[in-house]
Amino acid sequence: MRHFVNDLDDLVSEGLDGTIISAHGALKRLDADAPAPVALRSQLDPQHVALVSGGGSGHEPSHAGFVGEGLLSAAVCGSVFASPSVDAVLAGILAVTGEAGCLLIVMNYTGDRLNFGLAAERARAMGHDVEMVVVADDIALGDASQPRGVAGTLLVHKVAGHLAEQGKDLQTVAAAARDVADRVVSLGVARDTGTVPGNDAVDRIDAAEAEIGLGIHGEPGVETKTFEALSDLVEDMTERLQAEIAHDGPIALLINDLGGTSALEMSAVTAAVAQTELGSRVELLLGPAAVMTSTDMPGFSLSALPLTDDDREALTSATAVPSWPTAGAPVKLADHVVSSPELPASALESSTPSSNDEVRSLLELACQSCVDSKGELNDLDAKVGDGDTGSTFAHAARGVQERLDQLPLDDPEALCRSLSALMTQQMGGSSGVLLALFFEHTAEAVSDSDWPDALARGLHGMMELGGADVGDRTMIDALSPAIEALQDGKGLQGAAEAARKGADGTQTLGSAGAGRSAHVSQDSLDGVTDPGAEAVARVLEAMSQGR
Amino acid sequence: MRHFVNDLDDLVSEGLDGTIISAHGALKRLDADAPAPVALRSQLDPQHVALVSGGGSGHEPSHAGFVGEGLLSAAVCGSVFASPSVDAVLAGILAVTGEAGCLLIVMNYTGDRLNFGLAAERARAMGHDVEMVVVADDIALGDASQPRGVAGTLLVHKVAGHLAEQGKDLQTVAAAARDVADRVVSLGVARDTGTVPGNDAVDRIDAAEAEIGLGIHGEPGVETKTFEALSDLVEDMTERLQAEIAHDGPIALLINDLGGTSALEMSAVTAAVAQTELGSRVELLLGPAAVMTSTDMPGFSLSALPLTDDDREALTSATAVPSWPTAGAPVKLADHVVSSPELPASALESSTPSSNDEVRSLLELACQSCVDSKGELNDLDAKVGDGDTGSTFAHAARGVQERLDQLPLDDPEALCRSLSALMTQQMGGSSGVLLALFFEHTAEAVSDSDWPDALARGLHGMMELGGADVGDRTMIDALSPAIEALQDGKGLQGAAEAARKGADGTQTLGSAGAGRSAHVSQDSLDGVTDPGAEAVARVLEAMSQGR
Repeated sequence: MRHFVNDLDDLVSEGLDGTIISAHGALKRLDADAPAPVALRSQLDPQHVALVSGGGSGHEPSHAGFVGEGLLSAAVCGSVFASPSVDAVLAGILAVTGEAGCLLIVMNYTGDRLNFGLAAERARAMGHDVEMVVVADDIALGDASQPRGVAGTLLVHKVAGHLAEQGKDLQTVAAAARDVADRVVSLGVARDTGTVPGNDAVDRIDAAEAEIGLGIHGEPGVETKTFEALSDLVEDMTERLQAEIAHDGPIALLINDLGGTSALEMSAVTAAVAQTELGSRVELLLGPAAVMTSTDMPGFSLSALPLTDDDREALTSATAVPSWPTAGAPVKLADHVVSSPELPASALESSTPSSNDEVRSLLELACQSCVDSKGELNDLDAKVGDGDTGSTFAHAARGVQERLDQLPLDDPEALCRSLSALMTQQMGGSSGVLLALFFEHTAEAVSDSDWPDALARGLHGMMELGGADVGDRTMIDALSPAIEALQDGKGLQGAAEAARKGADGTQTLGSAGAGRSAHVSQDSLDGVTDPGAEAVARVLEAMSQGR
Repeated sequence: MRHFVNDLDDLVSEGLDGTIISAHGALKRLDADAPAPVALRSQLDPQHVALVSGGGSGHEPSHAGFVGEGLLSAAVCGSVFASPSVDAVLAGILAVTGEAGCLLIVMNYTGDRLNFGLAAERARAMGHDVEMVVVADDIALGDASQPRGVAGTLLVHKVAGHLAEQGKDLQTVAAAARDVADRVVSLGVARDTGTVPGNDAVDRIDAAEAEIGLGIHGEPGVETKTFEALSDLVEDMTERLQAEIAHDGPIALLINDLGGTSALEMSAVTAAVAQTELGSRVELLLGPAAVMTSTDMPGFSLSALPLTDDDREALTSATAVPSWPTAGAPVKLADHVVSSPELPASALESSTPSSNDEVRSLLELACQSCVDSKGELNDLDAKVGDGDTGSTFAHAARGVQERLDQLPLDDPEALCRSLSALMTQQMGGSSGVLLALFFEHTAEAVSDSDWPDALARGLHGMMELGGADVGDRTMIDALSPAIEALQDGKGLQGAAEAARKGADGTQTLGSAGAGRSAHVSQDSLDGVTDPGAEAVARVLEAMSQGR
């Protein structure tokens, strides 16, 4: 299974089934007796001109996805990249055409022109009024060849669909469709070809290059070259389009994902286009949206239509077809930027320094322990992590040492908030945020609890978000028993003993479910103390022993 | 340029610009002073609970694309696949949070949990009412690890967004969000990994395989295996999901394109899911749509939520956010199939045989000439085309020979319609449709014109759709002068001479703009007669010479 398919022969029919299942009742289809899958509008008005399009599949949502109110009456779905047969098109015409007649909208490929054309002729022979418009909007190949029909076709669908919905007659609808087809121009680009279901990828475009003007079946384009930046590529494309547009007034622009481009890139394309001269002329923007795809091609196309008043009305008229990209004025960025809110001053800067000899002494002992243990903790971490626990703790400790005179040592809550700010600022990474959470939650509790309970709240706050529990080989294995010892009134001495016991116990713990050692094998863990737990034990030992 | 980007460092910000430009005014953003790009609702009601989400980028339209009425108030956009900083999240919270407070909706990744969690804590310290819900809907990894947050997060957005829009208080909104987060389950699959802008593709999944349960950053899944068919894969996935859903009532199902899957495949997936037991339980279908992507990953995910009445109301409530996939009942296919219209009987079957010795004789001569020339015409075509012109013409001629007794030889219009039908039925390909068009248009004209003018109309009808003109090295180069000779009263003899001259003239024609030789080099063409033109000349020579 190279693609998400069952039998390749059933793909187009099953795809149409899926489209109908998810269309909320707007679509029907012809039964299995039809020569090819044909999508139909659920509600047809025989007084309205019927619009029929289609062609080879692989361009979804075109065209079945554009069947519905204010758009197509039917879409005839050939096999992937292959025109449907004359009989299939004729079945589509006959299924939806009433007294008002039928307009066929056909993309300019020989097979489609011939099969739709002959079907039109046979429907006429049966007494039906049938017109056909061929869309050839691709400017890639210049004047030499038959221009291909690409995404601009959808603007023809919309203008014709709007007029048909209004009950205009066939000649009016067909003339408007031809007029749009004459004026719309498109150009595509891709950084790779799409894959055809069941086939391997075609390796034609070099990874560093982009091919301008390739067709929606992967036909070769104008040139393949390297661009330094998206803006250069977009500049090149919009200049080529601009050169083909007769007047210099406002345009409608359709930005189309060819099927496999990331949404992030498509948004970046939209921003880049807005900065071009062509972009400055856009009055109606449609997309970015995947509307005329080439299976999963990573690429995009731009379709530009110089706007008339009639176009404007037709392109902005409402339709319930969900694939249709709403047309609206592009937003001027400058009007949609809001000043960033002022972030609160760090607790480090906003708190008033105060002195408390006991607290200062304990902090000095804790910090010195971290600084002295740097090498040994790094060595431990090299066995079960990325080898930087010692450096990280030492760096944070030095930050505290340097700021001892500015800290609110005699204000427990302010001190904890300052330490929290210092941890995010000085320590960084997950450890920094985890310790910041510990001090932040301790701060919240310390004004109305004693220290042991406040620290327990801090631990709880850290564990709630950190994801690690006791037994996961983290600093929690030392911190948790130590805080319990404090809560049991065993003092710093008891806390240090509990932390040491917890830290040493990590040597025999199994593979962890979270934390730094979650992806380390059991063999590597055996006999190694978790460096975070070791750091906690050493800090508490230093504090309790006064050295 | 491996991807459509300018400076990689600007990609997320430029992408947000593009999203805002195309959002029709619904979105704003924080200015460049913000620690990261933040998308904001243009219209904020301070009386409503603010909803803030975000995380690493690369999952567009999540989450900026879901900022808007009835959904998020703000989305904080980290770098691709990297959590935004604490300060960035805090800026997002402060930009949208009023008296009603703020709910953070966070996907279950350590970085996101920590950064959003600490930002929440700091916002609380500033006096704001902030709650946080962590979504962990991915069932891929079983109970052993922290389940990841994936597309099911969007259902949490929608339910919370609906309640916030209704003015419910923070506790109510948060409780409902937690409840949905507890119940929603998701599972993804991909046939390849996505590419990270600026990086090469990771070649991890074999072309014939699919990986079930991989994460939206390409994290490894449960297993990688070969499936014979899409239906087997979908059966496997839906069974795994079904096993995780407690009750057996109706569900909402979100079908999500992971970013690089063709729309045709996504529709086939939708049809396949509908046929499963889980599919039969779907009351509300959302998608298929690309809502939580992994850049351009060719894969999809399914998210299932057992429905409560409250869910139903929230998931179907209207929102103007265009990325949101409308939820509705999946359509029962059987109710949406229409009988195929009866195609008209072929002119071959519906016409009454009649005799006309002169016409019969001319047809016999023409057919025998085609049959006799098979080898020589194939040889000519081998030099400038695909080598089958002789076989194609001979096959069609034999079809006429076999049916001479059934043809309406004395009824010009019916005869031409019969020959048209025979060409599509017996000849096939472009040549068959082209000749069918020739005879169909001739038939239309022959009742009120003489033969030469009717044939001229036939030629015109063929040329109009065929795309080739005189001088393009096709049968037109013989047919056109021959018909002109007939119109000039020069009879069959004159027509044959004109056709021969035209056919021989193709030897010196330049490279063609259309037709079979459009892509053949000039060297290969020089001195070679076009096989189609040669066939026409030989037929007319045979007819005029009576042999």
